[in-house]
Amino acid sequence: MERLQQQLNFLLEMDKEKSIKRQTRCTDHHMENDAEHAWHIALACLILSEYANEKIDVFKTVAMLLIHDVVEIDAGDTYAYDTQGQMQAHDKETKACNRLFSLLPADQKKLYIALWKEFEENETKEANFAHAMDNLMPVLLNNQDDGYMWRKNEVPLSKILKRQENTKKGSECLYDQIIEILKQNIEKHNIVKDCEI
Amino acid sequence: MERLQQQLNFLLEMDKEKSIKRQTRCTDHHMENDAEHAWHIALACLILSEYANEKIDVFKTVAMLLIHDVVEIDAGDTYAYDTQGQMQAHDKETKACNRLFSLLPADQKKLYIALWKEFEENETKEANFAHAMDNLMPVLLNNQDDGYMWRKNEVPLSKILKRQENTKKGSECLYDQIIEILKQNIEKHNIVKDCEI
Repeated sequence: MERLQQQLNFLLEMDKEKSIKRQTRCTDHHMENDAEHAWHIALACLILSEYANEKIDVFKTVAMLLIHDVVEIDAGDTYAYDTQGQMQAHDKETKACNRLFSLLPADQKKLYIALWKEFEENETKEANFAHAMDNLMPVLLNNQDDGYMWRKNEVPLSKILKRQENTKKGSECLYDQIIEILKQNIEKHNIVKDCEI
Repeated sequence: MERLQQQLNFLLEMDKEKSIKRQTRCTDHHMENDAEHAWHIALACLILSEYANEKIDVFKTVAMLLIHDVVEIDAGDTYAYDTQGQMQAHDKETKACNRLFSLLPADQKKLYIALWKEFEENETKEANFAHAMDNLMPVLLNNQDDGYMWRKNEVPLSKILKRQENTKKGSECLYDQIIEILKQNIEKHNIVKDCEI
């Protein structure tokens, strides 16, 4: 049962994703971790897949979302609006991807490395919609929290809009919804208005 | 966009699942919550589906696992080995299921209530395997934690074996693996041996 043992070891290693803190507060005000986030956006994908620009393979997208952040077990979380950090994160995350999925049997290692890379490269319609989910949920949570983390980190509108370009590739409809939410938060001075919307 | 607003409200309500604490410790020793647990066993289902007694629809099973505990937002977590609590939980959970999924548009409400009931009734091969995942992961985490929660709650073997009958319905192979782990923990006096194994 060497195969099963490899799979169970991988799943136990994955437990560490529950310790990686993000820059988003949950409803009860604790800082969200990667496992909670991955669960939330996998569920969002089930509920919102009808808004994808093109018809997507929902199962593949959910699987992609469940594993999209596991590399942060080694590489740590990089805040979405930390431009320099984002540039340095890629190499660390690629190494992490290889180490972590190498815990699996060879066939699954190949499958999940390919799935993670597909998310990262963001060229397919499934990856596009996965990014839309990854970008939508923090906006919803921040909006519900009266923009607390945007205010705390003094996030400029230009950086949010730059990130949300990926949302548009996955879902024009959800992008429009996000723009409405951003407008409300600019009016409330929760977001630094450094450009037009 | 009333439909989209209903769906977004549902997803924001779901955020509360991240506050429901379970009786399992994670690798870093924080008490696991329902969202972390749901993510972990949905991932486990992707990795371990080959061990299902019968070939399952993996997507349907993953979807079932993502929503299987949302009723605890209203009903709270009931410890697996709290026999009286388990008997009282069912009514509260059925009410919670109706309230929470009623936040969704009618078509999705119907779909997700049916999926949650399928998990609860545990008659289909997908529900059987979902229960196997739900039962396997706490055993793996407890074993890795040197049986801390079993010792703390003085859990008797008979209750663990009773619960694991459901695992056998989903996967004989994973059930056998669990029995091996339980035997090791009996030897270490982590589990109260009140019956034979």
